[in-house]
Amino acid sequence: MTNTQVTLVQIDNYGPWTVTPEPRREADLQTMQSRLYADISQFVGNRGGYVFFTRFDNMIAVTNGCSLEDHALMQESVGNRYPVTLSLGVATGRSPVQALSDATERLQDAGSAQDETRRECLEGRVIGDDHRSDDDVQIAHFDVIDATGNYTDELNAFDTFIRIEQGYAELMRHMRYSHESLSFFVGGDNVIVVCPDLGTAEYEEAISHVEEAVDVEMQVGVGRGPNAHEAGFAAKHALETCRADGTRVELEWETA
Amino acid sequence: MTNTQVTLVQIDNYGPWTVTPEPRREADLQTMQSRLYADISQFVGNRGGYVFFTRFDNMIAVTNGCSLEDHALMQESVGNRYPVTLSLGVATGRSPVQALSDATERLQDAGSAQDETRRECLEGRVIGDDHRSDDDVQIAHFDVIDATGNYTDELNAFDTFIRIEQGYAELMRHMRYSHESLSFFVGGDNVIVVCPDLGTAEYEEAISHVEEAVDVEMQVGVGRGPNAHEAGFAAKHALETCRADGTRVELEWETA
Amino acid sequence: MTNTQVTLVQIDNYGPWTVTPEPRREADLQTMQSRLYADISQFVGNRGGYVFFTRFDNMIAVTNGCSLEDHALMQESVGNRYPVTLSLGVATGRSPVQALSDATERLQDAGSAQDETRRECLEGRVIGDDHRSDDDVQIAHFDVIDATGNYTDELNAFDTFIRIEQGYAELMRHMRYSHESLSFFVGGDNVIVVCPDLGTAEYEEAISHVEEAVDVEMQVGVGRGPNAHEAGFAAKHALETCRADGTRVELEWETA
Amino acid sequence: MTNTQVTLVQIDNYGPWTVTPEPRREADLQTMQSRLYADISQFVGNRGGYVFFTRFDNMIAVTNGCSLEDHALMQESVGNRYPVTLSLGVATGRSPVQALSDATERLQDAGSAQDETRRECLEGRVIGDDHRSDDDVQIAHFDVIDATGNYTDELNAFDTFIRIEQGYAELMRHMRYSHESLSFFVGGDNVIVVCPDLGTAEYEEAISHVEEAVDVEMQVGVGRGPNAHEAGFAAKHALETCRADGTRVELEWETA
Repeated sequence: MTNTQVTLVQIDNYGPWTVTPEPRREADLQTMQSRLYADISQFVGNRGGYVFFTRFDNMIAVTNGCSLEDHALMQESVGNRYPVTLSLGVATGRSPVQALSDATERLQDAGSAQDETRRECLEGRVIGDDHRSDDDVQIAHFDVIDATGNYTDELNAFDTFIRIEQGYAELMRHMRYSHESLSFFVGGDNVIVVCPDLGTAEYEEAISHVEEAVDVEMQVGVGRGPNAHEAGFAAKHALETCRADGTRVELEWETA
Repeated sequence: MTNTQVTLVQIDNYGPWTVTPEPRREADLQTMQSRLYADISQFVGNRGGYVFFTRFDNMIAVTNGCSLEDHALMQESVGNRYPVTLSLGVATGRSPVQALSDATERLQDAGSAQDETRRECLEGRVIGDDHRSDDDVQIAHFDVIDATGNYTDELNAFDTFIRIEQGYAELMRHMRYSHESLSFFVGGDNVIVVCPDLGTAEYEEAISHVEEAVDVEMQVGVGRGPNAHEAGFAAKHALETCRADGTRVELEWETA
Repeated sequence: MTNTQVTLVQIDNYGPWTVTPEPRREADLQTMQSRLYADISQFVGNRGGYVFFTRFDNMIAVTNGCSLEDHALMQESVGNRYPVTLSLGVATGRSPVQALSDATERLQDAGSAQDETRRECLEGRVIGDDHRSDDDVQIAHFDVIDATGNYTDELNAFDTFIRIEQGYAELMRHMRYSHESLSFFVGGDNVIVVCPDLGTAEYEEAISHVEEAVDVEMQVGVGRGPNAHEAGFAAKHALETCRADGTRVELEWETA
Repeated sequence: MTNTQVTLVQIDNYGPWTVTPEPRREADLQTMQSRLYADISQFVGNRGGYVFFTRFDNMIAVTNGCSLEDHALMQESVGNRYPVTLSLGVATGRSPVQALSDATERLQDAGSAQDETRRECLEGRVIGDDHRSDDDVQIAHFDVIDATGNYTDELNAFDTFIRIEQGYAELMRHMRYSHESLSFFVGGDNVIVVCPDLGTAEYEEAISHVEEAVDVEMQVGVGRGPNAHEAGFAAKHALETCRADGTRVELEWETA
């Protein structure tokens, strides 16, 4: 049974900072946001987690395996190297959406995202070591079937992007409302979804739904593990099986 | 009259590279993609351009002011510092979508994105210095009205994200199909759109359309300039006028 | 009693890579070397260690607290994100120089630094968790007394640099040959030295030696800990005591 | 005749920042310093210049080809992305040391490096476009003969480092006092020297001096150009000639 530990990473008072004393060069904001995300991806990733850029000023991470001390260290390190600071809310739950809701509330209770006195909060709870198990995290890695052949080498790059975006938007809403799951576009034609305990039927349904709604064909590899990296890596391998065998849904624990 | 120079930046053979000889750690792919984007943002940004992360393996840039030699240098520098290489297609046109289409075709004609023999192409044309003018680029900077008050401090972080995504998806399709414009989410609640010559009526219509379709309220500041940075910076200032005056559409050249 | 765990980090086949097929832009080599070092500093630093840039193609780290699995992960992550790969040799010993010698031999036995078939070696041993203690690492943090007043605000920037370099070179040789210690310039006017069990007499002697030999006046704060970060942080605090009290040598465990 | 444009890059009030309100984690300081240097290397390098890390809080650059506007842009961009700011002094002269002295004085006149009210100064003059010529910059690229065979594969990594350091320290002092040149260790066994108009005799003398003083054997390739990149690239090619032909001194404009 899944027990997802989710961390909401929020830059303190970011909106005002970007325009004080004057608006800042957009290219510099993009550079800073992306490098901050990349650093958090290394920190969390090296401890078995995943972080998704989401809105860049608000990032969502699956942090099973990261302690509160780890969170505090990441916060301190960012404060030493960037012109902004982070607040972190951590929570856990069987449903990823529920965990993310609780994590969000932890920060909202501490103060507004644009409250300039609310800085470097660290609120919440992690899963104790003795309460962890090998199926705490379920990750589904979707991609668009033959995106290169169907889109990238055929349409202009923005129309390809629109097709991928539509597929993502449809999948994202369906997985959130039907299955309490969190879906993130991760580049190319790939979407990674953080799920509770779902099975073949739910994934087949999701793929059909996206195909009917926006005519984008997807396949999915699914994995489980004690943390996001292990679950996600298993999902990547399952996706390779889809590619090799021409199947649409592969669950690593039923395939391997 | 706008004359947008658009560059399509494509990582060579990226899909196969990410799984050869084995799938690579997702956190590392995210880190590399983001840092590569950040570097391109600095290079292009320091020459007055904007680049948008788009799909990360395919990035779209507005490069008025960048010569073909600049493009070649960026390509060489990335090849010296990353485990991947870039191909670049450059084109110009009154319509941003038209320019992007031509830039895409330049690369498609050279070979597939996953053709492992197609490496480091540089194809296309830039606007000659004596053909440049002060209104070559029009940039519109949209944001969601009081996103912090309405969403960030109220909903869970993913539901806020869904609202912003829906607003973006609606605006993106409308601006592309009605106005041949290219729209990019740039973090927070901000969308930057690269436009041809549009006026107040078009922007008011776009905002109404998004409000009716998905109930997301946006405002917009618009600027013009010889390059993306100048047009975009003017747009940012016009957006500050919206915030200060409570207006929905501000054109910098009619406001200042 | 100190028990220093030292890792030698060596880029595989770097010399040839920098000139194949042609010499590469120097600015790009500098950028890549520095960012690789910065990443290793984050990885090792977040686990309580220190890494010193040394020669950039060969870097020396104090890795008490890092397991062999940590080393393997760092190696894998770098291989996913850079155009070069790393080989790592790890060893331990009461004397930092002895540990470093053993770590070096581990790699030399595996093959030449420019043997293109020798890639991503990981050789050596770490200190088992149950063999660790609170005084495994001793760090001394030296700086030049009032460098800003005496040099930076007075001499041209290169002559200031020469003075600092001379002080460093003298201290480095003395500490290596008299005390089996490893000294590293870390920027500004700071030198961090990794030591075995030394006391006030040895540090006073080192400072006198440097003053007599090259007329550069230094002070030092010394700390001990189970890892480099804790020892080094204690040393920084002791150095603050030197600055506040005007003393030349402060041992944190005798001061606090 | 050489006409070197030198920029002194100094982080404002850095010493106090590193210990306020408390000393900061050393690994974070190293990461930030290195990444800041890497960014400056890209900015300056992409405009044909070279920057050397020197002391990290004070960096020396050869900026022929960079205008004052370029300097201001780099300063602004760093201010948007780092927790520190830069002051810049720019000057020119036939002798690199003279130019660096003037650049240093520009900053010293504006205020102390640790004067917390002195922030983001930009002082000095650049070479006007119509005053530039093809031999404004002379770069000499030295390396140690067969460092891998003689040292890296034989001695422990610190003793190799000591040998390289001694060679560098000797060369650095000789070139500064005898030839008004600025020498910088750039990693591996490489030293790049920024020179006025020197010829074969001066380089042979420098190499003999180092060999006699510290028994380190070096070779050198020398190039000229309108900027550091072109001069340095020619020097790299000349160094390849040394390696291929077994010669000790090669001047690119006499070799090619």
